[in-house]
Amino acid sequence: MYRLICKDGNAKRGEVTTVHGTIQTPVFMNVGTAAAIKGAVSTMDLQEIGTQVELSNTYHLHVRPGDKVVKQLGGLHKFMNWDKPILTDSGGFQVFSLAGLRKIKEEGVTFQSHVDGRKIFMGPEESMQIQSNLASTIAMAFDECPPSKASRQYIEDSVARTTRWLHRCKAEMNRLNSLEDTINKQQMLFGINQGGTLNDIRIEHAKQITELDLDGYAIGGLAVGESHDEMYDVIEHVVPFLPVDKPTYLMGVGTPANILEAVERGVDFFDCVYPARNGRHGNAYTNHGKMTLLNAKYELDSRPLDETCQCPTCRNYSRAYIRHLLKAKEMLGLRLLVTHNLYFYNKMMEEIREAIEQQRFAEYKKAKLAGFEEGDK
Amino acid sequence: MYRLICKDGNAKRGEVTTVHGTIQTPVFMNVGTAAAIKGAVSTMDLQEIGTQVELSNTYHLHVRPGDKVVKQLGGLHKFMNWDKPILTDSGGFQVFSLAGLRKIKEEGVTFQSHVDGRKIFMGPEESMQIQSNLASTIAMAFDECPPSKASRQYIEDSVARTTRWLHRCKAEMNRLNSLEDTINKQQMLFGINQGGTLNDIRIEHAKQITELDLDGYAIGGLAVGESHDEMYDVIEHVVPFLPVDKPTYLMGVGTPANILEAVERGVDFFDCVYPARNGRHGNAYTNHGKMTLLNAKYELDSRPLDETCQCPTCRNYSRAYIRHLLKAKEMLGLRLLVTHNLYFYNKMMEEIREAIEQQRFAEYKKAKLAGFEEGDK
Repeated sequence: MYRLICKDGNAKRGEVTTVHGTIQTPVFMNVGTAAAIKGAVSTMDLQEIGTQVELSNTYHLHVRPGDKVVKQLGGLHKFMNWDKPILTDSGGFQVFSLAGLRKIKEEGVTFQSHVDGRKIFMGPEESMQIQSNLASTIAMAFDECPPSKASRQYIEDSVARTTRWLHRCKAEMNRLNSLEDTINKQQMLFGINQGGTLNDIRIEHAKQITELDLDGYAIGGLAVGESHDEMYDVIEHVVPFLPVDKPTYLMGVGTPANILEAVERGVDFFDCVYPARNGRHGNAYTNHGKMTLLNAKYELDSRPLDETCQCPTCRNYSRAYIRHLLKAKEMLGLRLLVTHNLYFYNKMMEEIREAIEQQRFAEYKKAKLAGFEEGDK
Repeated sequence: MYRLICKDGNAKRGEVTTVHGTIQTPVFMNVGTAAAIKGAVSTMDLQEIGTQVELSNTYHLHVRPGDKVVKQLGGLHKFMNWDKPILTDSGGFQVFSLAGLRKIKEEGVTFQSHVDGRKIFMGPEESMQIQSNLASTIAMAFDECPPSKASRQYIEDSVARTTRWLHRCKAEMNRLNSLEDTINKQQMLFGINQGGTLNDIRIEHAKQITELDLDGYAIGGLAVGESHDEMYDVIEHVVPFLPVDKPTYLMGVGTPANILEAVERGVDFFDCVYPARNGRHGNAYTNHGKMTLLNAKYELDSRPLDETCQCPTCRNYSRAYIRHLLKAKEMLGLRLLVTHNLYFYNKMMEEIREAIEQQRFAEYKKAKLAGFEEGDK
């Protein structure tokens, strides 16, 4: 259940009630692909850094340890010891980007596991069944994310099939939620808008999927090679055709600046691997832009990563120490950076929510972006 | 300052007062070689798992980031954010076991850095200076750990040199502790007993070094290839010649069983890489012996590693989840195992202290060892 608390321009401040608690939006979901945050960050740590929603990947968990194993162990929440909301993606994106040789038919997709090479079939029903076994709070519809350079004809056909798949997803989710031994009988389903950078196809598709009255709607297939301006243009064109009283989720995006731009255009759910990936590559997000900790200038720098930050890393460790850990290849360095970066994203979303409530989002966004430009002093 | 609280047979229950707080013995020091515990365990975590003393390696920190860097940053305590006692080894063991081409002279040892190959000279004075820069609570004397297969003549000569070096260490430490800009002016110095498995040389050496009235005495050069029985035999012969009213430290030892045997023979300081190393290799110490988490039988096992354990890992995560993390090569799995293993060691030391106080150490040891034999059920 989504409640629109207020708007500031097109920016939305909302609240989603779920069986696993309430989500305040705009929200950044923290990515734990294989039911774990990369960089040795635990779910106990997530509680401490203000994480509202954890996101896990259906494809990865289906392949290993297997969704049936997770179900036998009581579902994803119990498995990874996380009691707040979890969103699972549909597996579609990974099937199309990660798996080996694949074959798309009307029924679904046959592909090879990247772990052991075995042949797997996944269609809308299978994706819903896997996500139902995982018992996430929010399931994503099974869609095709067409290649960024696909022809207009390919995208039209693909989007039409994604719409047909969505009907099958909804029917299957309804069936699964009514079964006796389903762990989460109130699993929510979000539909996904596709269409590449072709706005007319995007809009037509948005109209079709909103007719299904789902729990939320995502914009998929962006941040796959198009420019930032092309991405913002798609968002601007599509958001008006998605219900304002439902969550609007921009999948897999992005940098802090991307998020600020998308919030301004009405998006209120985000996820991205950047904060964890950048942490693992020795980079920290700060209010003065990104820092590369291996830089020699930090050797004797006893300040925290960001002097305004209250995360566990900044409250306890210095730039010089983190630089040393990276040089010495100590895993702790990665953990401290990933923790900081996730906190940075979570905290920015909190600031965004406050700014929207106080009708000063444009001002907040401008100041935040200017800070990023300044760089580390 | 060591205070002997009580004895139970030869087992000692003591208390060491330092500028960084009190150490209750017997104690197991947690090894953080390069000023970090392997496996992404933070000093915040150490506070939670009952760690009393952190141990760092002089050789590693001299090579990277450099002890002068650490001094400029306020010493090791500030650098790694740990306010309890820290022991640094002398660098000797690593120089003899890890560094490239080395040359031993009366003055000290010339060797190559394992990081960048540069030539480094370290003698007793250099080792004390480095440890003074690191500002650890307890410094270890610079000694030679003779090869396990060395001849009697080699060991005699080596031990005699180690004694001469010890005099130089003491003089240098006194000088350093009196300097204005020394961070920890009350740095303690422990001497190290050597002599391979030749008890007469060991005893003669013990007599010589105890004359220097140092803050504590270690038994070095064990667990380097001799059998457990040979090791216990050396301990039995040497401990009577070390002061009962000073800490007795068995360096680099060992398994839980090794520790129980050594405590029974009067040892009360320990350190070992086993708990962290075993954790990183997917193994957990429990009251029923060691578990290999990759074992297929844990796939659906929702129990904690050890059902009697109150560590953060056992309070929050299951065997099945940890097994999954290891299979998926998620760093979090290693962190959870290392945390558990260090807690297991720390907790065992707490039990040992209580058993000695209650004069039931023999009984406790017997029951504990019997548990290890049972194996995981």
